Amino acid sequence: MLPSLSSAQASAERTTVQRVVGTTLTRATDVLAIEAPLEISLEYGPSGQRQTHSLAVTMRTPGHDAELVAGFLLSEGIINSPADIESLAHHADPRRPKERGNVLRAVLAPGVVLELDRLERHFYTTSSCGVCGKTSIDAVKATSCPVPPSPASPRVPASLIYALPGRQRAAQPVFEQTGGLHATALFSAEGELLLLREDVGRHNAFDKVVGAALLAGQLPLGQHIALLSGRASFELVQKAALAGVAILAAVGAPSSLAVEAAEEFGLTLLGFVRGDRFNIYTHAQRIAPA
Amino acid sequence: MLPSLSSAQASAERTTVQRVVGTTLTRATDVLAIEAPLEISLEYGPSGQRQTHSLAVTMRTPGHDAELVAGFLLSEGIINSPADIESLAHHADPRRPKERGNVLRAVLAPGVVLELDRLERHFYTTSSCGVCGKTSIDAVKATSCPVPPSPASPRVPASLIYALPGRQRAAQPVFEQTGGLHATALFSAEGELLLLREDVGRHNAFDKVVGAALLAGQLPLGQHIALLSGRASFELVQKAALAGVAILAAVGAPSSLAVEAAEEFGLTLLGFVRGDRFNIYTHAQRIAPA
Repeated sequence: MLPSLSSAQASAERTTVQRVVGTTLTRATDVLAIEAPLEISLEYGPSGQRQTHSLAVTMRTPGHDAELVAGFLLSEGIINSPADIESLAHHADPRRPKERGNVLRAVLAPGVVLELDRLERHFYTTSSCGVCGKTSIDAVKATSCPVPPSPASPRVPASLIYALPGRQRAAQPVFEQTGGLHATALFSAEGELLLLREDVGRHNAFDKVVGAALLAGQLPLGQHIALLSGRASFELVQKAALAGVAILAAVGAPSSLAVEAAEEFGLTLLGFVRGDRFNIYTHAQRIAPA
Repeated sequence: MLPSLSSAQASAERTTVQRVVGTTLTRATDVLAIEAPLEISLEYGPSGQRQTHSLAVTMRTPGHDAELVAGFLLSEGIINSPADIESLAHHADPRRPKERGNVLRAVLAPGVVLELDRLERHFYTTSSCGVCGKTSIDAVKATSCPVPPSPASPRVPASLIYALPGRQRAAQPVFEQTGGLHATALFSAEGELLLLREDVGRHNAFDKVVGAALLAGQLPLGQHIALLSGRASFELVQKAALAGVAILAAVGAPSSLAVEAAEEFGLTLLGFVRGDRFNIYTHAQRIAPA
């Protein structure tokens, strides 16, 4: 089991609703997945010339914020290893006490060069497109994968894949309550659940898993299987590729560009993993039918 | 029925997969929802000083691109009425012919003032947060709704709400094929389906509906019901509020901040609309139990 950073923040809250069933209306209690903004703040620069910069605000479910930021910084190409981060901690401006818990400050090692121009160009989009730093369309697809998984391994039996969604759901208490969270789970090639993270944003759930693995020194994930509770988009394939994931499996459907990117990056992409069936979209050599 | 801009672009494509069922593996055909980047390009400025600017790249399902851009520009606070747009058309740089169909140029009226500084601050986030132009956390929630719906109307019976998801699904041919698309449907207060749009991104599906209504001169939507095929996030509630939507209904769960925002903006928010039941989270006065 990968170590988990402790998280005392609530990820769900109770609310009172009017429940309508047939022709009756009653008061009832409902549990909501919490969505709240997290500001990602950086301290960076050479010794003696340190600066701070508000990098981004993401709407996330509180909890595992440090892992989320670590994974985000890796996905954005800002850091490459745990050594690039000196510390990750919640930060509160004394003038804005209400924001406590919703600002996370990443202190980068002095050697990390922050190319703000490239980042601003990157964030200047509505869909996070991984390490792509340009607004031109070719650039969205031009990302190279720094850690292609070995083409030969792992090789896992189909029966192992069938078991994964059940193990993921069994480890998802908040989803069971709210129905409102996406999950990403990380499994060993033997099907052992190593890590599970939930979030209202599916890219955040993925970043939390990658960030936890990064901080534990476990990257690249060339012997691992990542399972998505929903659909597979281009962005999630790109994040998986940057973490070196060998097999990306989704309970839902992949998009056209997710398949194209997985083919290019050397990932095995599985979709519609339900019951005793699934589809293999790319790099089928890692799956044994029996 | 609101008029629809014609769209000759395909939203799904066939691919060959390996289908694993039990212990057998066969070749099969699968249909993928298309995900492709769309660059939103602006022409703006006073007569004689016109400029162009690449505003954003969004990962979307091709089709109804002009509507998507119109809805996006409204959501971002760049335009307020159809008169602010002179034209919307695909645009190809002769040096980049492969991008044809994936760049949409919005020509803004000379009187529209583009505050690029505010926009760059806005886009400098990973979650689109509507008209919020600041990276500070308070700002994400500080958005005011320019068109609050009338508190008294419409008032619709629960039985009308029960019928909406079925009407939405019946009008969703691509979803039926791929399982990979989000949908937003717009209904009259009498439950008539006026418009349905699908996209791999749920914010895009919503923008397409709002853009179509904007271009048809139908805003604000104070007598309408918008139905989401999935979950309701803060961002979607904010987009609905900016279009003046009175009732926002979701087949899935709302997040905590979606409920908070709907309360503040005067929207009736419904969740888990399935069969003959749903939950009312805010402003229940617009729903009659019978």
